[in-house]
Amino acid sequence: MRALIIDNGLCLEMSYPTPTPLQGEAVVRVLQAGICNTDLELLRGYHSFKGVPGHEFVGVVEQAVGHEELIGRRVAGEINAACGVCETCRANRPTHCPQRTTLGIMRRDGAFADYLLLPFENLHPLPASVSDDQAVFVEPLAAACEILEQVNIRPTDRVAVIGDGKLGLLCAQVVALTGCQLIAVGRHADKLDILDRCGITTTTDAASIAAESIDVVVEVTGTPSGFALARRSVRPRGTIVLKSTYHGEALPINLTDIVVDEITLVGSRCGPFEPAIRLLANKQVDVASLIQARYSLNDGVAAFERAAQKGTLKVIVEM
Amino acid sequence: MRALIIDNGLCLEMSYPTPTPLQGEAVVRVLQAGICNTDLELLRGYHSFKGVPGHEFVGVVEQAVGHEELIGRRVAGEINAACGVCETCRANRPTHCPQRTTLGIMRRDGAFADYLLLPFENLHPLPASVSDDQAVFVEPLAAACEILEQVNIRPTDRVAVIGDGKLGLLCAQVVALTGCQLIAVGRHADKLDILDRCGITTTTDAASIAAESIDVVVEVTGTPSGFALARRSVRPRGTIVLKSTYHGEALPINLTDIVVDEITLVGSRCGPFEPAIRLLANKQVDVASLIQARYSLNDGVAAFERAAQKGTLKVIVEM
Repeated sequence: MRALIIDNGLCLEMSYPTPTPLQGEAVVRVLQAGICNTDLELLRGYHSFKGVPGHEFVGVVEQAVGHEELIGRRVAGEINAACGVCETCRANRPTHCPQRTTLGIMRRDGAFADYLLLPFENLHPLPASVSDDQAVFVEPLAAACEILEQVNIRPTDRVAVIGDGKLGLLCAQVVALTGCQLIAVGRHADKLDILDRCGITTTTDAASIAAESIDVVVEVTGTPSGFALARRSVRPRGTIVLKSTYHGEALPINLTDIVVDEITLVGSRCGPFEPAIRLLANKQVDVASLIQARYSLNDGVAAFERAAQKGTLKVIVEM
Repeated sequence: MRALIIDNGLCLEMSYPTPTPLQGEAVVRVLQAGICNTDLELLRGYHSFKGVPGHEFVGVVEQAVGHEELIGRRVAGEINAACGVCETCRANRPTHCPQRTTLGIMRRDGAFADYLLLPFENLHPLPASVSDDQAVFVEPLAAACEILEQVNIRPTDRVAVIGDGKLGLLCAQVVALTGCQLIAVGRHADKLDILDRCGITTTTDAASIAAESIDVVVEVTGTPSGFALARRSVRPRGTIVLKSTYHGEALPINLTDIVVDEITLVGSRCGPFEPAIRLLANKQVDVASLIQARYSLNDGVAAFERAAQKGTLKVIVEM
């Protein structure tokens, strides 16, 4: 099969071995996949990943031994394949299973290929009301929904979402559904326009956010300056949700100030798929505006180059 | 009046001006006060504090214009004097009022003196069932109760309290009341004995705590090694409560790992007095075992020297 391969750079292989499912795994024919910042990080060496990247996809189940009812179904797929038997899995935290593999990120080939494998329990059949274009956003939208799984954002809360990248735009739209008093902070007027059209207040002037004025800050830049803005703008006893990974080893953080101001920091990663599918089916989130370019898998290397250009939103790869 | 003064070192003044109450303030004659690590920090330059330290006390109200019913009452006192009118105060977070003064810590003389001033609303009359010795612990015990104000510790949770100093011993006892599976980690068998006698499991062997085995870790050492142990032992999606301030400017923290493991960090400071008074009145917490020495105010400098000796638990100063 065709596959994009990370192995000291990125290349397209035309005859990569078609994967053979283990027991409990389905073979999914990929229709489309989206390029995520994590994919670009993997290409730069994150996780020392070698193999097929890609974890945001929509596909059709082609083989499903023992679950033949899935065959022919259009699906999105949760990316963490857990062991199912360890203490973490039994405590219903399979996305944190220490034995997990992660689609296109950790010890499991991903979606920039004609076929991928995932356990049956990872697959979510999609309603006809969710288009292929929308379905590619189920995974990052689920990650945005994770914020509300972890933090109770109340309609009366003042909330800031910092960062107008792909994930930031999804987080802002999900948080806005709570009815809270939301401001989205970014650096690109054209990206913030997408939120403006959703009725979300936006600003490119971070300095206009008053110190200690925000109940819940969602930090989606993964940069020291984004964290500093979050720390400055959150009120005492407020919450900072960390929604993006940070480059480099560690950031110096004044824990004494965290104690004195009783701040809560919440790390946030993968989220629940079913709410994300519902939000897309009900057209409660605009993802179409985030699509900036489409490439065929044959032009996958060019697709990654485009995605790596500063300020690019979602690049879709079609199989 | 007599007062211990921090001003480039510590000294006893025999004729410090007796304080004059502002409107809304009571004059409290101090009976006893406890030496806290924060007092030792102030002496080392924390907050550049000059004046009378001391914020853990029991006293008797001597003057209370407009609140004469308080006169003669034995009281404990909340240490943050808030403005009462700012947005933070109106949002019921007076301990975070930006205009606040803090007894014996920030712009308000404290308890190592014959008299102190506090607003009426800060005073908590004590039942006869709470002795003077117990009452000195109301303030730090309230800080321990703050953990349960912020985090829902469930009876089925595995919890570790790291640190066997004065506050750590109180935190462990408060956390144990939830019925959770608690282990207290310290370096001093004699201090942990106090917890052993309360039926709390203790260890001096930090390495015996399995990695990622704890649901909620309460870090009460304020040291990088204590934080590292907390980070190592907390499970994915677990919570670390930071209950102690940290020396120095900032600690390097790997925020990417916090995101990937979805850890929650909760800064925790002053807490509610009424539950602390109830716990003492009901003999649910052993504080008597924490008292290691008593000095008269006239020997206050010696009392601080004793408190500063490594491993010393609570030193009480009697007026």
